[in-house]
Amino acid sequence: MPVSTEPRTMIDFIEAQRGRIEVVLKKVLHHRETWPQALTDAAAHSLFAGGKRLRPVLALTVVEMLGRDYVKYENLFAALECIHTYSLIHDDLPAMDNDELRRGSPTCHKKFGEAAAILAGDGLLTLAFELLSEDSFVKNFQPEHVVQCIRHVSVAAGFSGMVGGQYYDIHGTGGARDEKQLLKIHAMKTARLLSASVAAPAVLSGVHEIILAKLVEYGDAIGLAFQICDDILNVVGSKENMGKPVGSDDGRETLTYPKVVGLDKSAAKARELCEQAKKAMEAFPAEKRQPFDLLAEFIIERVK
Amino acid sequence: MPVSTEPRTMIDFIEAQRGRIEVVLKKVLHHRETWPQALTDAAAHSLFAGGKRLRPVLALTVVEMLGRDYVKYENLFAALECIHTYSLIHDDLPAMDNDELRRGSPTCHKKFGEAAAILAGDGLLTLAFELLSEDSFVKNFQPEHVVQCIRHVSVAAGFSGMVGGQYYDIHGTGGARDEKQLLKIHAMKTARLLSASVAAPAVLSGVHEIILAKLVEYGDAIGLAFQICDDILNVVGSKENMGKPVGSDDGRETLTYPKVVGLDKSAAKARELCEQAKKAMEAFPAEKRQPFDLLAEFIIERVK
Repeated sequence: MPVSTEPRTMIDFIEAQRGRIEVVLKKVLHHRETWPQALTDAAAHSLFAGGKRLRPVLALTVVEMLGRDYVKYENLFAALECIHTYSLIHDDLPAMDNDELRRGSPTCHKKFGEAAAILAGDGLLTLAFELLSEDSFVKNFQPEHVVQCIRHVSVAAGFSGMVGGQYYDIHGTGGARDEKQLLKIHAMKTARLLSASVAAPAVLSGVHEIILAKLVEYGDAIGLAFQICDDILNVVGSKENMGKPVGSDDGRETLTYPKVVGLDKSAAKARELCEQAKKAMEAFPAEKRQPFDLLAEFIIERVK
Repeated sequence: MPVSTEPRTMIDFIEAQRGRIEVVLKKVLHHRETWPQALTDAAAHSLFAGGKRLRPVLALTVVEMLGRDYVKYENLFAALECIHTYSLIHDDLPAMDNDELRRGSPTCHKKFGEAAAILAGDGLLTLAFELLSEDSFVKNFQPEHVVQCIRHVSVAAGFSGMVGGQYYDIHGTGGARDEKQLLKIHAMKTARLLSASVAAPAVLSGVHEIILAKLVEYGDAIGLAFQICDDILNVVGSKENMGKPVGSDDGRETLTYPKVVGLDKSAAKARELCEQAKKAMEAFPAEKRQPFDLLAEFIIERVK
């Protein structure tokens, strides 16, 4: 794949947003006195292992588009990253994907043991809801908007979202292995939480439902595009790029986009979804939607 | 241990409350179309394996004391049982307590495999927060009270509560193995969620903080008593009573009350906590506090 020459602005933008999120995560997710030190070390190992911070970056970008003070939303950014990190820790477990490396570092269970990894994941998932109901966060918003935000995030993470998608991913849907099934699994496993990362800050801000609907449309599209790109990289990417052995999902019968429709069609589908996402934002003024266009481009950049 | 002759009323009361909770759980926790069937089968296996339902029974009893319509609180009852069940499923995993039997039935991972058990637990924990933020539930309360309820439940379940306590239980506190450490672990592992089961319905109802403080005092005391009784039963109980091999926690260096202070002193401590719990409720009229006295008696009844 040729190295793209254009994305200077995009990379600058993403890096700037990510840098701000890193500061927030370090501020919000420090060890607290009542937590077992060694257990939160395990959680911190995975939390601060250099992720893309895509979910909080999406949320931050929405907050800025709405012209709000992002400091008020810090707990939401941290909560989204906690949920994402917990899912990685549990997905890496021997009984699940059995991965020993993640982003070039030992996975949580390899470094801290399985029991600590299971509990670190459980704790991070729970912490997300502690953060979303903490007084210092809640006071910034209408309480009914906080509840709706919790609803969006929890449904995206649960049986009809991420957890359900991961189950289908491991055990199959028991039905036809076609594109429709695959999009359903991807939507559940990845797109729901990415979409919730866009919707939650909007709901929290009490935006009109027309704006919310556009943001959800955008979030759904980039969420699917993201998972398809991940699947493509898992086939063609280098070990350095992914931080884990290429094709490590291949030990079991995982249903991936490239397997069902081939690499070229997968890349085309990702590009199509990227355009679809941008189109959803056309209702907004150019300067408002530019960051979202950059984020959509960033998501498919990896497979260009 | 002699069979007690007096607890007719107590048993009747507990059974009646439990019966109502069973109806609620079956109503609220049915399989939903967007959930993977096999995964929710795994969750249902553990949810409907005949537990004591102590947490929702406590919550129901508070709701009745406050003279509220318990139908409005159904999602809270279900959420508490979801969190308790998730903790059992994860605690039973091979990397944790490695138990093959729970209440006389195969544990979730023995029957459905480890991956499904991990995900069923994750899904149940998340479901608790979906239930607590569901429109049909939220509309019954002030939204700020719903948020406070979510705060109580999540903190009780997280790093400074159940998850942290389970970590200490498995890995030790790294410090002195004395009674103080033990009470801390027990408070985190068990008492916090039992206490939250008493506090959450009160917070949701917007009670005065003096009433809340009394209920929390009661909940903390019975929570500790409960865990001490569990530890005693794990030493002296029969396989039939516990549904798992006696002394199954003994394979590793678990810190239990009987191990530190002996059986007799442990039973005395449980009785003392039971009296302390009853005393916390003395501020309420006799007919209001009677169900709480019965519940406290029920908790230590098993080791009489």
